[in-house]
Amino acid sequence: VSVNAPLGFVASGVSCGIKPSGDRDLALVATDDGRPVPAAGVFTSNLAAAAPVRVSREHLATTGGRASAVVVSSGNANAATGAAGIDDARRICDLVANGLEAACEEVLVCQTGLIGIPLPMARFESGIADLVSAREADARAAALAAEAMMTTDTVRKEVVVDRPGFLVGGMGKGAAMLAPDMATMLVVLTTDAICEPAMLHGCLSAAVDGTFNQLTIDGCTSTNDSVVVLAGGRSGHSASEEEMTSALADACGALATMMAADAEGGTKVARVTVAGAATEREARHAARRVAQSSLVKCSLNGEDPYWGRVLSELGSAGVEMDVDRAVVAYGGVVVCRGGTAADHDRTAVEAHMKQQNIEISCDLGAGSARAEILTCDLGHGYIDENRTTS
Amino acid sequence: VSVNAPLGFVASGVSCGIKPSGDRDLALVATDDGRPVPAAGVFTSNLAAAAPVRVSREHLATTGGRASAVVVSSGNANAATGAAGIDDARRICDLVANGLEAACEEVLVCQTGLIGIPLPMARFESGIADLVSAREADARAAALAAEAMMTTDTVRKEVVVDRPGFLVGGMGKGAAMLAPDMATMLVVLTTDAICEPAMLHGCLSAAVDGTFNQLTIDGCTSTNDSVVVLAGGRSGHSASEEEMTSALADACGALATMMAADAEGGTKVARVTVAGAATEREARHAARRVAQSSLVKCSLNGEDPYWGRVLSELGSAGVEMDVDRAVVAYGGVVVCRGGTAADHDRTAVEAHMKQQNIEISCDLGAGSARAEILTCDLGHGYIDENRTTS
Repeated sequence: VSVNAPLGFVASGVSCGIKPSGDRDLALVATDDGRPVPAAGVFTSNLAAAAPVRVSREHLATTGGRASAVVVSSGNANAATGAAGIDDARRICDLVANGLEAACEEVLVCQTGLIGIPLPMARFESGIADLVSAREADARAAALAAEAMMTTDTVRKEVVVDRPGFLVGGMGKGAAMLAPDMATMLVVLTTDAICEPAMLHGCLSAAVDGTFNQLTIDGCTSTNDSVVVLAGGRSGHSASEEEMTSALADACGALATMMAADAEGGTKVARVTVAGAATEREARHAARRVAQSSLVKCSLNGEDPYWGRVLSELGSAGVEMDVDRAVVAYGGVVVCRGGTAADHDRTAVEAHMKQQNIEISCDLGAGSARAEILTCDLGHGYIDENRTTS
Repeated sequence: VSVNAPLGFVASGVSCGIKPSGDRDLALVATDDGRPVPAAGVFTSNLAAAAPVRVSREHLATTGGRASAVVVSSGNANAATGAAGIDDARRICDLVANGLEAACEEVLVCQTGLIGIPLPMARFESGIADLVSAREADARAAALAAEAMMTTDTVRKEVVVDRPGFLVGGMGKGAAMLAPDMATMLVVLTTDAICEPAMLHGCLSAAVDGTFNQLTIDGCTSTNDSVVVLAGGRSGHSASEEEMTSALADACGALATMMAADAEGGTKVARVTVAGAATEREARHAARRVAQSSLVKCSLNGEDPYWGRVLSELGSAGVEMDVDRAVVAYGGVVVCRGGTAADHDRTAVEAHMKQQNIEISCDLGAGSARAEILTCDLGHGYIDENRTTS
């Protein structure tokens, strides 16, 4: 069990023929009685936001933050599809609402896949009937739902966070177009804690800010990013703001790590930490600059501790830095101190670079703020995955 | 002839053993009598600027914008080398000055190569004597100088711009770490026009802004970027500001195009034009966002006209945009209009994508400002070139 682990939720995943491969492409997470519960969403900042993002935002606004279900489809992003795309996204919610005996605006919709191609709506018309009938509270149903979200993902991404008195469950997808401030990533979370919509939204925003927004795969921010949460309250536990933020952040953090590890063409996950910054904003900015550098990412792929590139990215990040006090370390071994090469244990650094998880720590020598960000290497696989859409 | 084409300049290129391959790695451009002439430079904005950048800036400041020579070395960037690196860069200028019977501060120095490794100074001590003796005004000497600048470049980059009454000659290197606001690129320009230091600097800055700063290969800004120009005045022609800016811009533009075509691992050169922006700054920003997108660059590599990625990058560029009026075209064929797919001649677009030079034109539908930027595709070659430094 994952997304349906909290009391009162069911899930399902079926194939309706959006993906030419015949793989599962339609997922549902719903309350077990079809009744709406407090809900919140955080969506892409992309101005070319896809139709499902626009419709989900509109539905949450109409209901004042309540939903009874989230329907997810993969294989077609329903982005750059104009007014017809909006109509299609609404129709999908309508079909789910009919099956659950809920109202259309109580259904949220998330979609991922290729941009600019009209949705094959006939397939949704029949597929959603199957999807609604298949909903269950068991682990198999959760796994099928998580599978139905996948596009270039190679593994399902599921999580359960167990807290005193309540659970948070979740599933996600994302393996490229991942960048701070969201990415082509979809996440559906549930909890059986009691939490009203406004607080739920605040807790979700804070959790996303500290997790998914600290992850970068390729610097691209997609049209479809969505993280939604439904709080059913069935555990009877009233979560405090701290409790809920912390539980959601743990769930989001676990999914973010799974996404980095499953990055398209990636063979390494690297955590870039920047300390000694003048402000936290500058620390974040510098860490992103290093984490998004094609040259740094190529070095990771080649297991080469070429710290000169890290220093060069820090220097061009546009943040305050005292080069003569700058430090760079790999796996805790300082390789650059005072802006120049430091004597170090080469064997230890070489061994660290061969691991799957790499730690790059930097100090700007300009203050005491710090930030960290997850990234991955850049290898042939990423290019092979993204050269063509066919 | 190229960098020594304008009257009064000589050049040379030798091997002094910085490069393990034994390839040429030391170049000189000097006035033929060793006397200083008006000079200007535009350097990297990287805070971790390399020693040669710091020393050249200092020398230009000391002389009030005059120089008799530029010495260039390749194979070692002399970056992140601390106080010793500064001493080494000064010593290199001193050795050249001794050979030319000039003053140390009349020599500028540019270096490119690996970061963080002490310079093999003993090799410079003997190499510079050979370099100075080898200086000539003929085409072979210019070619050897251009060759001695190369690192991962696969071709020499030389240019001559012929204007009524005067010439501009130039040579450059650069094939990666190229990003707007300069890159690992070194350019040495000469002219036989008369032009005083302050005006020369203004003309050079304007020329660089319109050319090299509109080029992006991988979004990385190096520690060593330098563009310098020496104006010998030997033609007797007093250039106007417009004349000089235009001639320098033509020389820089030609070298920028050569760099894009020689980009590490690149197989395509793409010109991204963004029109319909609210301001020129926003147009530039959006064009860079598209040009630096790993996903867009992978599509170029795969010859796939996947405009959805272009639209997504525009939408996430953080600039004003009316998605419902957005247009994307490849080779002049509109593939997206009003933010959605446009019927178009697929055969024409496919044929365009197979060419080496790709045109991507976008309209944000938000105003009338425009900008363009050169980029290249992202292929296996870039990764293979940059995985390891060994």
